[in-house]
Amino acid sequence: MASAGFAEIKDKRDLEEGGVFAPRFDATGLIVCMTVEASTNEPLMLAYMNAESLRLTLETRIAHYWSRSRNALWRKGDTSGQTQRVVDIRVDCDQDAILLRVEAGGDGGACHTGRKSCFYRAVDLATGALKFIDR
Amino acid sequence: MASAGFAEIKDKRDLEEGGVFAPRFDATGLIVCMTVEASTNEPLMLAYMNAESLRLTLETRIAHYWSRSRNALWRKGDTSGQTQRVVDIRVDCDQDAILLRVEAGGDGGACHTGRKSCFYRAVDLATGALKFIDR
Repeated sequence: MASAGFAEIKDKRDLEEGGVFAPRFDATGLIVCMTVEASTNEPLMLAYMNAESLRLTLETRIAHYWSRSRNALWRKGDTSGQTQRVVDIRVDCDQDAILLRVEAGGDGGACHTGRKSCFYRAVDLATGALKFIDR
Repeated sequence: MASAGFAEIKDKRDLEEGGVFAPRFDATGLIVCMTVEASTNEPLMLAYMNAESLRLTLETRIAHYWSRSRNALWRKGDTSGQTQRVVDIRVDCDQDAILLRVEAGGDGGACHTGRKSCFYRAVDLATGALKFIDR
């Protein structure tokens, strides 16, 4: 699904080896985005963007997402203070995933639970239970 | 959507602060997975898992995904040699995203284009065009 303001590319080689940014939104108009801390590559969160949030992210260099639970545009930090300044925006080979490399503002956290990263639990491979990661 | 073999948790607090792994698959039975190199946190790829691929990943400690394009279980490396040994599996706050931290086998690459990472292009914030990242 293409969206207003972004190019659409169907040729696989152009999509993968070309220089035109042509993000591929899914049937619901969203593209998945993994967000990491630019200086360390620490994974912070995984969220979704629609065309408007991606456009606003590019224009303002402040991370904007689309909240699937609230069904609303979500400028990260508006309520939490956890702003994210964009250092770099990357796209994957077939242009259906975004990688956002950011500098975290506010308290440095990205997770609504107050933690720095949303990925604060690991699966214990022996038991299958979750264990909290000490940081 | 819950899937056979995994717990289902509806209470938000239990989901976010509990020790039970209860991955939330979407309406098509998939959960999104970001995969990074364990030693450096370098983002490698973004893919999807169904319950079977997640279960096999946990059991074998070799990354298994679900290929949406081929509609098939995909043990990473079977055709490419680009195997991924699982160091760590994490889940996000609301348990609808997986973070896989891996050691890459084969040539060390994760991308079918032959590159190490699928995220080999960045959006030029001034022009909106893609630029290839020198590594």
